[in-house]
Amino acid sequence: VADPEQAMEEGSRQRVAVLFSDIRGFTSFSEQHPPEQVVRQMREYLTEMTDAVLDPAVHGVLDKFIGDAVMALFGPFAEEGANLSARAVVCALDMLDRLDALNRHWETEGLTPFRIGIGIHAGEAIVGNIGTPQRVQFTALGDTVNLAARLQTATKDLRAVLLVSEPVRDEAEAVLGNVVAFVDRGPLAIRGREQPVRVFEVARRAPTKPAA
Amino acid sequence: VADPEQAMEEGSRQRVAVLFSDIRGFTSFSEQHPPEQVVRQMREYLTEMTDAVLDPAVHGVLDKFIGDAVMALFGPFAEEGANLSARAVVCALDMLDRLDALNRHWETEGLTPFRIGIGIHAGEAIVGNIGTPQRVQFTALGDTVNLAARLQTATKDLRAVLLVSEPVRDEAEAVLGNVVAFVDRGPLAIRGREQPVRVFEVARRAPTKPAA
Repeated sequence: VADPEQAMEEGSRQRVAVLFSDIRGFTSFSEQHPPEQVVRQMREYLTEMTDAVLDPAVHGVLDKFIGDAVMALFGPFAEEGANLSARAVVCALDMLDRLDALNRHWETEGLTPFRIGIGIHAGEAIVGNIGTPQRVQFTALGDTVNLAARLQTATKDLRAVLLVSEPVRDEAEAVLGNVVAFVDRGPLAIRGREQPVRVFEVARRAPTKPAA
Repeated sequence: VADPEQAMEEGSRQRVAVLFSDIRGFTSFSEQHPPEQVVRQMREYLTEMTDAVLDPAVHGVLDKFIGDAVMALFGPFAEEGANLSARAVVCALDMLDRLDALNRHWETEGLTPFRIGIGIHAGEAIVGNIGTPQRVQFTALGDTVNLAARLQTATKDLRAVLLVSEPVRDEAEAVLGNVVAFVDRGPLAIRGREQPVRVFEVARRAPTKPAA
């Protein structure tokens, strides 16, 4: 890219890993608890998730919150040759660790714990500052983003916590193969796609925290 | 509410109308055109949609852009007794008018026109500043928001441009019955809901623009 700043302004096509996370049963939770409690737990939860994304070890970009969902990107502003899929998976594992700690804390206060599902896909997307002069946001657009969101949705049907696509498995395995197993959950039919998508559930091999 | 500012900070349960709009076939469009063109058309499109939401006649709140989708709220900061459903429907009609004008302009330049789908539901939601100290956003949470998003998705299956729920029809009809017809599209099965939802397609009766 001749002028990276210009490209950010106008949008460029680049490879990214996209992560979506979402709280299970959040709608029921939000309707059965006082709004102040919902907003407080959301704030504590989203703070932990944000810290996981922005951790210098994974160097993620917090794209946005969508209700109780978090969208994060790996790739923009990363150095050449970084293993984007491994970074996204490490971020997801960190999110789960942070959620465990938060749930233990909440339980001592008698608050409801959260459970989450996470989906990750990697591929090309249009990345840049999208929006209007008044409301501009750095984000990613395209099918790569859609599929990551669908994988997150699929965690509900497959009763999985962390699902990734085959390209993510292929890229991340070299770095993370010792600490996690990528368990084939078979081809999955995805709305709006002709071909089923092969998905992998990520399971920890060891309790130690991997480095990206 | 004793202290509205405090309630905004902590979240409060209040009635809102929620509007989602989305560009048909956007993913294919974004992959088949240069990123600069995609980002430019998005900017022009989102500027028009934002202007429709912020129009003083409807007094909407631009919640966020989600890729090519727009989420808007009607109710927060509105005066007591405002017909929130009518405002959301008027906003949707204005969005469609603005899109028509934009498409005519684009066609003179040889650019691809956009088609959109819009879904509207009204009900209670938790409304307030949700997020973290670093990234806070005024938004709405809960089932009312989810159903509005599902109605937008349903416009694809029903090949409709503007779909609303029964509560929206019931509230808006008194004000807008002369300018639009609410055409019963029957009960619709919605993922994650036991009961099907009765949906109505909004069709213009007259070419004149209604006032909220």
